Amino acid sequence: MSSVIKARITVTLKNGVLDPQGKAIEHALSGMGFNGVGQVRQGKVFDVELAESNKAKAEADLKAMCDKLLANTVIENYAVEIA
Amino acid sequence: MSSVIKARITVTLKNGVLDPQGKAIEHALSGMGFNGVGQVRQGKVFDVELAESNKAKAEADLKAMCDKLLANTVIENYAVEIA
Repeated sequence: MSSVIKARITVTLKNGVLDPQGKAIEHALSGMGFNGVGQVRQGKVFDVELAESNKAKAEADLKAMCDKLLANTVIENYAVEIA
Repeated sequence: MSSVIKARITVTLKNGVLDPQGKAIEHALSGMGFNGVGQVRQGKVFDVELAESNKAKAEADLKAMCDKLLANTVIENYAVEIA
């Protein structure tokens, strides 16, 4: 039975990059009566299963997936956490 | 100077809920030559700043924000982490 590695990839906007969705959420929350709402920034998470036993190989593959598909590295950062 | 609480809200699809975006990503990754890609599930993260000094109050507010706006609790789970 091959082992499965479970990982979470979190992709967030780099500092200084405008986040119109985050702004819209800030306004919506204030409009709903939530006081003291400061900055809201929205990002993405990907929970990925990999048929891989070597953690280092899995991490390298996951980073390559971010670089090639899951993140726009011009404006986004990504973090890979292996469970 | 009022204190600011920083929190991360993670919203993910409940088990059993179909994730067409996740499926599309699975296929794209395989097509790009990544072998052994199993299930991929996509979710959202919100990094929220709150002008609040009471952590319990902040957590209650953040959960209410999820229930009212940030998550569709019929199909999504949410987790609140206060930094």
